[in-house]
Amino acid sequence: MDTRVPSKFLSSPEDLGVVAVGFSGGQCKPGVDAAPSALIESGLLTQLRDELLYKLHGDDTVHQYTDLVPHDDPPYRSMKNPRAVSSVTRRIADQVYSHAKEGRMVLTLGGDHSIAIGTIAGTAKAMRERLGGREMAVIWVDAHADINTPESSGSGNIHGMPVSFLTGLAKEDNEEFFGWLQPENLISVKKLVYIGLRDVDIGEKQILRQHGIKAFSMHDIDRHGIGRVMEMALGHIGADTPIHLSFDVDALDPMWAPSTGTPVRGGLTLREGDYICECVHETGSLVAIDLVEVNPSLAPATDIGAHETVRAGCSLIRCALGESLL
Amino acid sequence: MDTRVPSKFLSSPEDLGVVAVGFSGGQCKPGVDAAPSALIESGLLTQLRDELLYKLHGDDTVHQYTDLVPHDDPPYRSMKNPRAVSSVTRRIADQVYSHAKEGRMVLTLGGDHSIAIGTIAGTAKAMRERLGGREMAVIWVDAHADINTPESSGSGNIHGMPVSFLTGLAKEDNEEFFGWLQPENLISVKKLVYIGLRDVDIGEKQILRQHGIKAFSMHDIDRHGIGRVMEMALGHIGADTPIHLSFDVDALDPMWAPSTGTPVRGGLTLREGDYICECVHETGSLVAIDLVEVNPSLAPATDIGAHETVRAGCSLIRCALGESLL
Amino acid sequence: MDTRVPSKFLSSPEDLGVVAVGFSGGQCKPGVDAAPSALIESGLLTQLRDELLYKLHGDDTVHQYTDLVPHDDPPYRSMKNPRAVSSVTRRIADQVYSHAKEGRMVLTLGGDHSIAIGTIAGTAKAMRERLGGREMAVIWVDAHADINTPESSGSGNIHGMPVSFLTGLAKEDNEEFFGWLQPENLISVKKLVYIGLRDVDIGEKQILRQHGIKAFSMHDIDRHGIGRVMEMALGHIGADTPIHLSFDVDALDPMWAPSTGTPVRGGLTLREGDYICECVHETGSLVAIDLVEVNPSLAPATDIGAHETVRAGCSLIRCALGESLL
Ligand SMILES: [Mn+2]
Ligand SMILES: [Mn+2]
Ligand SMILES: [Mn+2]
Ligand SMILES: [Mn+2]
Ligand SMILES: [Mn+2]
Ligand SMILES: [Mn+2]
Repeated sequence: MDTRVPSKFLSSPEDLGVVAVGFSGGQCKPGVDAAPSALIESGLLTQLRDELLYKLHGDDTVHQYTDLVPHDDPPYRSMKNPRAVSSVTRRIADQVYSHAKEGRMVLTLGGDHSIAIGTIAGTAKAMRERLGGREMAVIWVDAHADINTPESSGSGNIHGMPVSFLTGLAKEDNEEFFGWLQPENLISVKKLVYIGLRDVDIGEKQILRQHGIKAFSMHDIDRHGIGRVMEMALGHIGADTPIHLSFDVDALDPMWAPSTGTPVRGGLTLREGDYICECVHETGSLVAIDLVEVNPSLAPATDIGAHETVRAGCSLIRCALGESLL
Repeated sequence: MDTRVPSKFLSSPEDLGVVAVGFSGGQCKPGVDAAPSALIESGLLTQLRDELLYKLHGDDTVHQYTDLVPHDDPPYRSMKNPRAVSSVTRRIADQVYSHAKEGRMVLTLGGDHSIAIGTIAGTAKAMRERLGGREMAVIWVDAHADINTPESSGSGNIHGMPVSFLTGLAKEDNEEFFGWLQPENLISVKKLVYIGLRDVDIGEKQILRQHGIKAFSMHDIDRHGIGRVMEMALGHIGADTPIHLSFDVDALDPMWAPSTGTPVRGGLTLREGDYICECVHETGSLVAIDLVEVNPSLAPATDIGAHETVRAGCSLIRCALGESLL
Repeated sequence: MDTRVPSKFLSSPEDLGVVAVGFSGGQCKPGVDAAPSALIESGLLTQLRDELLYKLHGDDTVHQYTDLVPHDDPPYRSMKNPRAVSSVTRRIADQVYSHAKEGRMVLTLGGDHSIAIGTIAGTAKAMRERLGGREMAVIWVDAHADINTPESSGSGNIHGMPVSFLTGLAKEDNEEFFGWLQPENLISVKKLVYIGLRDVDIGEKQILRQHGIKAFSMHDIDRHGIGRVMEMALGHIGADTPIHLSFDVDALDPMWAPSTGTPVRGGLTLREGDYICECVHETGSLVAIDLVEVNPSLAPATDIGAHETVRAGCSLIRCALGESLL
């Protein structure tokens, strides 16, 4: 049964462009590149095709981008693997753009969260072109803000920096190091909303306050409940703005999603995660979704963790793409 | 201490009729017939007697209904074990009716959910007789809607069909196959409220919509909170209507009730389950409760599951029957 | 980054008096006396110093109070270890008072909950002296009410009685048995608020009702949500009253804090516990916090329990002392 709501901004809403990104260079733990295969093998794409009735585009095989990873990639402005991440995200931007310009919904399976530099760059550009220059909103669901600049980052891992590059807070002219990002690839801090934050660096807190960025921490969710928080989040964005949803699975509590690189206690329940995705779907404004940071190789004592994390990830995606309970 | 609220519809509210149903024929997994013994052995009836001060009626031994299960019971209209389930539920209807007509509260310990055909048939008839034809409401707490007709069901398991027989959506004249259900045994779809739904078949969704049946899914509970959902659920029923509560333990999340035949993730917390039962008790309108689908033989890796599920079931029953925190 | 809110009642809010109480005589299970060491070894004090920028006072070593525990300590009015608990809490009262009279925030690491006889006696006296006789409020977060009198208690364990001595409901003239408590050490039942109750004795329920004591059970938290409950709790206390927060880790659900002497299911999530502490901090009225009943030796099957319980305790304290998510 087709339970999808009518799309406001997609010309081919029944078409789903899938980009499977087997890339882990934005951080240091191997294994997150295996997530797309794990998600696909658990039946995700089949469900999207058979149950939610999407027509799938893109390939079922996972991109490894090995041609883009240089043998030698020393730090630049303290960033680790800067050439690799820049090249791969540039390629991803093209892939996502090619689907989005056709008016398709786009689903990207990461990979670490650095890949959102590519996905958002791709949809932001396509939306501007397709919708007469209209700016897109981003809902970033994450335990972390991922808004460090290369200079404020303590680790140098680029998966902690994508939002600073995407909002133009971090600037760089050299094409080799994200200099390829053009104004049409960027988003406004006014159209950015965070949900689920609970482990934010001091420098990031200052950035959030200084720019007045809308952010709902776990404290806010406890205070208001997830129902009211989604009302406020979507109210901030407004009904006439396309939405790119970038979902880091570590937003979920480790009880539901233990297999991820930087788990933080006190997170969203799976029900709250699904609810967020359902609400975003119901707006009819969703144009793209990323699911990132599932790392099947990081399981606790029992190996039930990876399986549960993959299942949680599939559930989030299905909810965002229109599965509903009733 | 007696914390029970005054009953609106029972003439002997301190009397509790207990029906212990060791029956599993409404589905295919052995073990759910062992639930009444497990609940009783864990001290449930003693607690109801000593702490909540009920005077217990009915026997402490569990009915196996072996005399009613035919050697040969081939499918009819695709239903599995149709003669057995029909005969057993007809007997249960008599047992429950014999308590309810005396103005007692009735507690039925299942067994799979097919047994509710009997329990609700029994109380519906007794309420009509005792209260001048008044119709009874049913609150069905479940991950599933259990409203398939024999024809819409994919599995043929009758525990997925009780609501369709009880509302008259499924009809059958043959006494051997639920034809014994008379108008006085049935309930109105207008007086039916679901809570906790999250795994509803496509055909069931259509039935729910077509008949405008009030249903609160997990999405609604996330949106409004369980406090507001119970206000709405009880508001729909109204203050002047007797309530039969049919609680499928699979409404709880598997984290709290893993030992059940068809667990579904994303369910009620035990706190929410207890809260539902407490609120129903507080109405003073409760006339009967079923607890079903506890299957002590279905435990995950550790065997802590069965113990926890039985404890959860006892807690739900005590809350519905008047236990309160303060 | 200093995220602490300005203090209303402390003259030296950047100074933190720490009292580490290795005492378990208020109940019968060994091990709760090891909690302060476990909390300190996990880095708590370092975090308070380095991240929340407190200047710590008091010693880093844990008091064992062996000089105060008599060889022979037979029951008195059915209380177990009455001389030991009386002497130790009297000493604790002096320790806490010596910090509080200097206008410092006071943190006490228990120990079982009997020690709150000392901590609250100490702050109540200091607040009256420092603030012109002003009465202090107490927020008691606990699965239990701990308000039995020696006579109503079934167990004789004094950790179930501290509130009755502190409110003057239990009286005793003999100095050896809490007769040292003076009017300036006591609190009013009007300024007492419970949060998280779910296992309250019959006699305690009667006391709570008879004295109109404000109490939010888990049922209330399910009904209203923790956000609204904290509004009501803090509204009851008012903005012009110093607050002593006494947090029994068994208020948390055993899922998050299994290592405690009297665990009760259906408790607060860690998120709710942290939220309570954050809200109390935000009032600017907090003058002292106790964390009690962490028992690292009581772990379930896996020994992950003690570690998690200690971490949860540290999280609660950091939240109460000013850590915030954004
Ligand atoms: Mn993250
Ligand atoms: Mn992230
Ligand atoms: Mn069910
Ligand atoms: Mn059922
Ligand atoms: Mn306690
Ligand atoms: Mn306590």
